[in-house]
Amino acid sequence: MLADTLAAIAPVDDSLIPSVQARLDALTKPPGSGGRLESLVAQLATITGAAQPVVTPPGVVVFAADHGVAEEGVSAFPTEVTAQMVANFAAGKTAINVFSRQIGARLEVVDVGVKGAVVSEGVVHAKVRPGTANFAREDAMSLAEVERAIAVGIEAAARSHAAGCRCLIVGEMGIANTTASSALLAAISGQPAIRLVGQGTGIAPARLVHKAEVIENALTARGADPSQPLELLARLGGLEIAAMMGAYLGAAARRMPILIDGFIATVAALLGCRLAPGLRGYLVFGHRSCEPGHEVALALLDAEPLLDLQMRLGEGTGAALAFPLLESACRMLSEMATFDSASIDGASC
Amino acid sequence: MLADTLAAIAPVDDSLIPSVQARLDALTKPPGSGGRLESLVAQLATITGAAQPVVTPPGVVVFAADHGVAEEGVSAFPTEVTAQMVANFAAGKTAINVFSRQIGARLEVVDVGVKGAVVSEGVVHAKVRPGTANFAREDAMSLAEVERAIAVGIEAAARSHAAGCRCLIVGEMGIANTTASSALLAAISGQPAIRLVGQGTGIAPARLVHKAEVIENALTARGADPSQPLELLARLGGLEIAAMMGAYLGAAARRMPILIDGFIATVAALLGCRLAPGLRGYLVFGHRSCEPGHEVALALLDAEPLLDLQMRLGEGTGAALAFPLLESACRMLSEMATFDSASIDGASC
Repeated sequence: MLADTLAAIAPVDDSLIPSVQARLDALTKPPGSGGRLESLVAQLATITGAAQPVVTPPGVVVFAADHGVAEEGVSAFPTEVTAQMVANFAAGKTAINVFSRQIGARLEVVDVGVKGAVVSEGVVHAKVRPGTANFAREDAMSLAEVERAIAVGIEAAARSHAAGCRCLIVGEMGIANTTASSALLAAISGQPAIRLVGQGTGIAPARLVHKAEVIENALTARGADPSQPLELLARLGGLEIAAMMGAYLGAAARRMPILIDGFIATVAALLGCRLAPGLRGYLVFGHRSCEPGHEVALALLDAEPLLDLQMRLGEGTGAALAFPLLESACRMLSEMATFDSASIDGASC
Repeated sequence: MLADTLAAIAPVDDSLIPSVQARLDALTKPPGSGGRLESLVAQLATITGAAQPVVTPPGVVVFAADHGVAEEGVSAFPTEVTAQMVANFAAGKTAINVFSRQIGARLEVVDVGVKGAVVSEGVVHAKVRPGTANFAREDAMSLAEVERAIAVGIEAAARSHAAGCRCLIVGEMGIANTTASSALLAAISGQPAIRLVGQGTGIAPARLVHKAEVIENALTARGADPSQPLELLARLGGLEIAAMMGAYLGAAARRMPILIDGFIATVAALLGCRLAPGLRGYLVFGHRSCEPGHEVALALLDAEPLLDLQMRLGEGTGAALAFPLLESACRMLSEMATFDSASIDGASC
């Protein structure tokens, strides 16, 4: 499934840019005054292949999984919280539920590897394994498990697309997943872990140093090869990060714009772009997280998020908050009058 | 009317902050992880007096007026464009029409001083005079006219409030109004005009220098006193800027949160806060404009906009784009589960 998906990712269609720009310049506003909305709608046109792109309704997929490395004391919350939060998602009461309702999104929650039992209703059950192994002691999972988790992601993107969603937002829930993400980013970027780790769900400064040490020791022990994204995922995890990457690839293969959330989502995007460089053109970045590693991951992707609200909430919330801007960009292009149609005098210089 | 409105502006109610913060900390998310949405909803509570504030539906009011200083060649567009754009507003085809529809806003367009004839339907007719005089040669208007324009603004805010709007966005249309705004800001800030003026609707660099010279010469000739906001408006204009200020004051008197747009809107807010310091607590800043003067005006108000999209579109568009974030902040507080209610384990550190 992964090979077919990779083969199906076409380059975005830059040939549409001149006609979009011509229409933007003809709209009843000073040329260029739409700022980032103008480049945004041009990108959405190149992704969708439509001269007047549409991004509504959006789809949100949240992947939940556990991390064996949580037993090293790297998170403020116990592992049990992952399953408890999945029940909270199913009950419609989390931040991403709230913001998904606001933007009219189809929301799907997928258990790709929660450790404990998960509520049966309102959740897609696709558990590859009950949490990863502790990467401080052994590989997080096998390569076959990485590929199964990626397939879970591809299938979720396919369901969103089949349900009529025109833009994909991918979120995550998994206690200790900023540790796995920081480890993956340390391996890819070569930066010391202490410069990448943040407070995650809110750990104290002393535990931050411990978190970085756990990562550094694991990178040495696991011998992660930064040029091999699938192998990196097997060594460091996590299941939801592999699924997120799979969802991005699946969405790109279907020419859906992908709105990237914060730190963990960006690390998954970075891995995806290493596997399929053509993925980059499909990505719009929603929110700059206050996790320190996010800046490093964004720089590696040459990405500038739309929002900076100092959030570190995860679940896809930063992307969901940015979604109305994508809708605005599309509406600006398709609903505004042009100077000609409105009989308005043009600029003299 | 102005005196009554000023007297009716109560200080925002900071006593609500502890209970809002307690609920924010009890929600199923890491403490503080909501970033700016958390301080935003706390501010909205202090404004509205509601522990769980609501900002929908929003109201948008766009004031249109002309500026005599346009005859000095400070804009890329001719004065006629103001009336043409009013017709475009009435036809529902401008950027602010598009974004108002998206956010479900009640939109009202008010002619407070357009020079030429204005379409009759779909516009509130409250013309104080047909454009200001050219402030390069004489005072823009009389003090009585300033007060009438302010009253037009207060009445517009009252109509929005009576129609059920829970948050006010105020926009403008007026060829050459960045020149008037830059002059007002130069008088208030003491900064040289050349550091404040920007390309507005898109003038060439040589005309930018001319624009600054027109302003500097006028400031000397008019002898504007920075401590007298109404007198400043009479000397430099404009009618829509006075009306915007009036709308802010009218909204604050009714405890409506006010979402401030870009450069011109912020200069009007600055004048309003000089007249009524209690206004500041009611203001949320939507978008950082790329007009250079905006940064100076924001600093004088100690304000940090929610968005930075490099736009300079005016009309209230930057604020309209930021509005969904206010709605998100309110929904986060009122719709999310608490740890207790969701039976989720708390943090250990």
